[in-house]
Amino acid sequence: MAEKVTIADVARHANVSRQTVSNVLNSPEIVREETRQRVLQAVEELGYRVSQAARRLRTGRSRLLAVRAEHTQDGMNVFDRFLHGLTESAGLAGYRVILYTAQDGPSEIEAFDDLLGTYEPDAFVLTSTDYGDVRTEWLAGRGLPFVTFGRPWGTPGGGSHPWVDVDGAAGTAAATRHLLDAGHERIGFVGWTRGSGVGDDRRSGWVRALGDRPLLERDTDGSAAMGEAAARELIAAGATALVCVSDAVALGALQAGDVPVIGFDDTPVARAIGLSSLAQPLEEVARACVDVVTTILDPDKPGARRGGPPYHVLLEPSLVIRKDPR
Amino acid sequence: MAEKVTIADVARHANVSRQTVSNVLNSPEIVREETRQRVLQAVEELGYRVSQAARRLRTGRSRLLAVRAEHTQDGMNVFDRFLHGLTESAGLAGYRVILYTAQDGPSEIEAFDDLLGTYEPDAFVLTSTDYGDVRTEWLAGRGLPFVTFGRPWGTPGGGSHPWVDVDGAAGTAAATRHLLDAGHERIGFVGWTRGSGVGDDRRSGWVRALGDRPLLERDTDGSAAMGEAAARELIAAGATALVCVSDAVALGALQAGDVPVIGFDDTPVARAIGLSSLAQPLEEVARACVDVVTTILDPDKPGARRGGPPYHVLLEPSLVIRKDPR
Repeated sequence: MAEKVTIADVARHANVSRQTVSNVLNSPEIVREETRQRVLQAVEELGYRVSQAARRLRTGRSRLLAVRAEHTQDGMNVFDRFLHGLTESAGLAGYRVILYTAQDGPSEIEAFDDLLGTYEPDAFVLTSTDYGDVRTEWLAGRGLPFVTFGRPWGTPGGGSHPWVDVDGAAGTAAATRHLLDAGHERIGFVGWTRGSGVGDDRRSGWVRALGDRPLLERDTDGSAAMGEAAARELIAAGATALVCVSDAVALGALQAGDVPVIGFDDTPVARAIGLSSLAQPLEEVARACVDVVTTILDPDKPGARRGGPPYHVLLEPSLVIRKDPR
Repeated sequence: MAEKVTIADVARHANVSRQTVSNVLNSPEIVREETRQRVLQAVEELGYRVSQAARRLRTGRSRLLAVRAEHTQDGMNVFDRFLHGLTESAGLAGYRVILYTAQDGPSEIEAFDDLLGTYEPDAFVLTSTDYGDVRTEWLAGRGLPFVTFGRPWGTPGGGSHPWVDVDGAAGTAAATRHLLDAGHERIGFVGWTRGSGVGDDRRSGWVRALGDRPLLERDTDGSAAMGEAAARELIAAGATALVCVSDAVALGALQAGDVPVIGFDDTPVARAIGLSSLAQPLEEVARACVDVVTTILDPDKPGARRGGPPYHVLLEPSLVIRKDPR
C-alpha cells in the first residue's frame, strides 16, 4: 500500500511547519494568503486526506448516517433499492451509511444509544414508521437530527419532524381510476389488517376513487396464500378487478382467477411475471432523505433544501401497467 | 439528551487525575491495582464510553467493516438477508458495517481508496466474486484485511485469500438426485451464459449427478422471459424435469409447462408461489465472514477461528422441496 500522506509530509513539501499546516486546515483565517495557497497546493499534490477520526475530534462530525438493516423473511421488499440509493446520495454529499439492526422500537432505541456513545453518527434515517412511533419521540426529545422514510402516522398535519414519503393513497387511487376507465365497476381491495399506517393509507386511495360504488374488500396478513383466498372471496362476491396493498398479496390474487390485478411496490417479481404494480420512486426518496438531513446538519451548505423546517416531502408513485385490464 | 460522560467526569468520580484515567484506559500496567479498580468502577457507574474517533486515533482501529450496497434492478436477490446477518454478527463482535457503492471493479477500487483515506475501515467484506477479480488483487497486494463471500473463481486450489462460499454444485447435485429418485431420467438445466463462476459451479453439480444421462441444457441472460423460452425448448427436447440456476429463471420455466422445476436461492417469491429451491445459509455465511475478518484483525481474540490462514469456508445449501416432483 502506498504510504499514507501525513501532515508532516505536507509541511515538508510546502516548506512550512506542521503547526502552519494544521492552521491552514483548521483556522485558515490566521494564515497569510500566500502561505495558505502553498499549503493547499501541497495538500492537493500529495493527495493528503484528513482521516474522519481526526476530523471527528476537531469538527464534532462523524459524517456518518445511521440506518437500520431491514430484513423481511416473508415479504418481497425493495429495501435494497432504497439502501443503495441512500448510500449513493450520501456519498455524493460527503457522508457514509453505517448500519445497525433491531427487532423492535425499544431495541432500536438501545441501538441509537449505543451508536451515539461510540460511532457518533451525525443523523439517523428511519424506515417503517407506524402509529405512535417511540423512536422518533426519543430522537426528537434529545434534539438529534433525523428524517424518516414514512410519515408520522396518526399525527394531524403530518407532525413536526422531517419526513419523506410516497403517497400510497394517490397510487391506489390512480390504479382504481385506471380500472374504472377500462369499464370495471366492481373493483375489490385486498388489504392488510387495519391499523398499519401504510396499509390504511393505500386503502384510502381506493375508497376515494370508488366514490359511491360498493366497497368489496378483504384484509390479509400480507401473505400470498391469504391474498389468494381473499381474492377468491372477492371474485365470488362479484369483483371483476382487484387492487392490492402489496405485490405479495397480488401474487396470490393472480392465482384466484382471471381478473386484472394491480399490486404495490413494483418488486422484481412483478417485473418477472408481468404483474401491473405501483412503483415507489425509491432513488428519489433516498436522495430527499439525504438532502433533508444534510440540510438540517448544515443549513448554509450549497444546495441546501429551501423552505426551512419542518421538511416534509411527499412523492408520487407511478402506475406501471403490464397487462390491458379490459 | 443526557450529557455525555467525559474523562473529566470519570476522574472526578474516582478522585484521580484525568491523566490517571487515561493511563487506566491505555496503559493499565502502569497504574496501581487499587486505583485501577476505582477508575474502572467509575467508568462502569457513569457509563463512560470511549468514542470510536478517540479510540481510532489511539488504537489504529475504526471497528468498521466496509461492504458494497448491492442493487440488482432485474434479479430477485437475497442481498438484504446477507447484509442483515452481517450487521448483526458484526455488532456482536464489536464492529459496524459501513456501506459504499460501485458500478464495477475499477470504481470499487476507487471506493476502497477513498474509504481507506477517510473512514479507515479495518477490513472489507466483498461480494459477487468472479474470474480474475481485480478487487481482491488490489487489496491483497496492499496487505489489507478482507474476506470474500464467493470463491476466487478460476484459481486452482481456491486461491490464497480468505473466503466464505456456498457449494452451489452440491446444491444442484442434490436437486438433480432428488428428481432422479422420483423417476426422472431426462432432467434439463436452465443456466446462465457460461463464464460466470457461480453459474458454472451450479451447472457442474447437475452434470455430476446426471452421470451418463443426456445433458439437455440452455443458457439464458437470467431473465424469467428467457427462462420460459429455454424451458419450452428443453421440454420439447424431452426433458421431464428442470433444475434452474436461479429462482428468476425458474419462475419463467414454471410458465413453460407442467414439469417439476427447482430454482436456486429460495427467494421470497419461491416461498410465495410454492417453488422448490435451494436455500443458501446466508446468516451462517455472514457469521463466518465476520469470524474470518475479525480473526485476521485479532488472531488472539476469544473465539478466534481455528486452523489459521487461509480461511476457506464452504457451506452447504439446503434443498427446500415444496412440490412432489413425481
